Amino acid sequence: MSIGKFEILCKDAKSNARKGLLTTGHGDIRTPVFMPVGTRGSVKGLTPEMVKDIGSQIILANTYHMYLRPGIDVVEQLGGLHKLMAWDAPILTDSGGYQVFSLSTLNRIGDDGVEFASHIDGQRIYLDPAIATDAQNRLGADIIMAFDECAPYPCERERLVSATERSIRWAKICKDSHKNDLQLLFAIVQGGIDLELRSYCADKLVEIGFPGYAMGGLSVGEGFDNMIRTTAHTVRHLPEDKPRYLMGVGMPADLIAGVREGIDMFDCVLPTRNGRNASAFTEEGPIKLRNSVYTTDIRPLEEGCGCYCCRNFSRGTLRHFFNVGEMLGPTLVSIHNITFLQRIMDKIHKNIDNNTFSEWSEEKLKKYAACGYVR
Amino acid sequence: MSIGKFEILCKDAKSNARKGLLTTGHGDIRTPVFMPVGTRGSVKGLTPEMVKDIGSQIILANTYHMYLRPGIDVVEQLGGLHKLMAWDAPILTDSGGYQVFSLSTLNRIGDDGVEFASHIDGQRIYLDPAIATDAQNRLGADIIMAFDECAPYPCERERLVSATERSIRWAKICKDSHKNDLQLLFAIVQGGIDLELRSYCADKLVEIGFPGYAMGGLSVGEGFDNMIRTTAHTVRHLPEDKPRYLMGVGMPADLIAGVREGIDMFDCVLPTRNGRNASAFTEEGPIKLRNSVYTTDIRPLEEGCGCYCCRNFSRGTLRHFFNVGEMLGPTLVSIHNITFLQRIMDKIHKNIDNNTFSEWSEEKLKKYAACGYVR
Ligand SMILES: [Zn+2]
Ligand SMILES: [Zn+2]
Repeated sequence: MSIGKFEILCKDAKSNARKGLLTTGHGDIRTPVFMPVGTRGSVKGLTPEMVKDIGSQIILANTYHMYLRPGIDVVEQLGGLHKLMAWDAPILTDSGGYQVFSLSTLNRIGDDGVEFASHIDGQRIYLDPAIATDAQNRLGADIIMAFDECAPYPCERERLVSATERSIRWAKICKDSHKNDLQLLFAIVQGGIDLELRSYCADKLVEIGFPGYAMGGLSVGEGFDNMIRTTAHTVRHLPEDKPRYLMGVGMPADLIAGVREGIDMFDCVLPTRNGRNASAFTEEGPIKLRNSVYTTDIRPLEEGCGCYCCRNFSRGTLRHFFNVGEMLGPTLVSIHNITFLQRIMDKIHKNIDNNTFSEWSEEKLKKYAACGYVR
Repeated sequence: MSIGKFEILCKDAKSNARKGLLTTGHGDIRTPVFMPVGTRGSVKGLTPEMVKDIGSQIILANTYHMYLRPGIDVVEQLGGLHKLMAWDAPILTDSGGYQVFSLSTLNRIGDDGVEFASHIDGQRIYLDPAIATDAQNRLGADIIMAFDECAPYPCERERLVSATERSIRWAKICKDSHKNDLQLLFAIVQGGIDLELRSYCADKLVEIGFPGYAMGGLSVGEGFDNMIRTTAHTVRHLPEDKPRYLMGVGMPADLIAGVREGIDMFDCVLPTRNGRNASAFTEEGPIKLRNSVYTTDIRPLEEGCGCYCCRNFSRGTLRHFFNVGEMLGPTLVSIHNITFLQRIMDKIHKNIDNNTFSEWSEEKLKKYAACGYVR
């Protein structure tokens, strides 16, 4: 096993879609892959057994959250992140950059690092690229991310440029600090929807050299077209032979459009967040289970879906569980929603195999736009 | 299959403990049995698959709650209670009597029935023995309960007598209204901790004749000794060849002491309620996971426990899940707690088989009293 090896198994003739095999310290990942998010060590509402049964190959955890609670030293004493999450397959941790800039109150952004107030208790905390990398080294995920500055959207050009420059400098520090050969450190391309900045950032990061590249700062309000245009442009500046990861992205249409532009990895909290909010993905568009039209609906969320929810529960029963506040409702709809996205990934693989991806994806994107899956 | 058949398989020589086999419309139940509670159609936090994997043979649902939401007609339209709960094994519904008298604001108790305000929206609702029986007929559980008046504890003798008399009259009406031969209608003996009233009530109900008898109005604050004394006394007035059910009872010590007095069936919300409150049953006494001593405790809740929680998660990880409010915490500890009670039931069966029940139960009760399981 050579950790970090990324084998391209198959390329689509008419798009940038490709299938690959990424080797990690906890096994191979078949790409394109969708990664469910276990922010604080748990994919919300699901046991790890459920997450695996759905066909998930790799899950995420958030360094920022684990850093605050229970703390990196506690995770270490509890046997590391794989043990804590009861997950013996690959794990990816983000660096905390996104959360520091989106969840907490910033006190100071310097060239060295960031001082911020914890979103939990206001405690003052300092993070910098070396500390974030050390934290991820100690958490022990298979793929870890460079600590970056995630500029808001929209953002003045001056701030965007400085955040991008800083993210490049910090990526270099992360690489120099990274101590664990069993973990792959991915860089994060920033630059908002400024194509020039994106290519500049990508080129600089590729110069430094990483086993994988992510795109950050997207799916933050810029809209589907801006996101895909920026993705398509950025991919052209990334090496063919390294995995590409579109961070925080995972609406049904986004997955298909992202793969078409050459993306290999995705993560998103939407399937579980929507699940908790009684909103289910289906091929015909989202089902909002709080709607009274479902009160006596004996159909499953989706006809033919083989997930535990659809095999056992009707829309009417799910609606009842949400109505009375039973935890089982969020659990079941989250199971279905992750299954729905994993089924899209399966179809992507099959259509690339059959050389039908281009036509299939075009048709699917049209359909998903019509039923409300494109923002 | 002859529904309602209760075969005594084995009797303990030195106590009233016995093993039996009760035939229902959805299969046989090996007694003594502990029944997890799915108040509103779901055993809180668990999928029915989990409940079954733990070894549960039969689960409860509450008629009062299902009557208010989603409503009996909706349950019927969704295919009945077994379909709604995704449970193809036996189900028992209580009659709603206990909830009417404990949860709602009573407007009027008459000889005919009860008018009360829903605890959800204050809506005025009328229930009487015929309506409660009809509701249970339509829900379709395998065992249904007579609609009774559950007097509070403590209670003036006059009120206790009138509630007991009324419960007897109502039990007769329930029997006359009961329309479904696939369902077993059990009567409920009331009478508080007044032994004379208890035997009077039991004798009257046995005269009417039912396929099973429950004891209601216990485990409501009277304490362990009063509960067991009342149980022991009442059992002597019940037929040997019918199942006996001690309602709402399920602390670890209660199960053992109840079986010793001749009880065959138990139900209790404690394993799941405690699970949600971060409190775990163990042989050494309850573990309160919010206690900081467990922060870095790598041991499972209970060494040697084969439940999903203990096989995969440490006390430290569980504490973290409760600390940050992850739903997985309540789910995992509820799994363990039900497993713990089902393991006690297994041991009861084995010790009756081996003719060691009397000694084993005495020792166990001493131990459980010492570690806080006897109130
Ligand atoms: Zn499904
Ligand atoms: Zn356990």
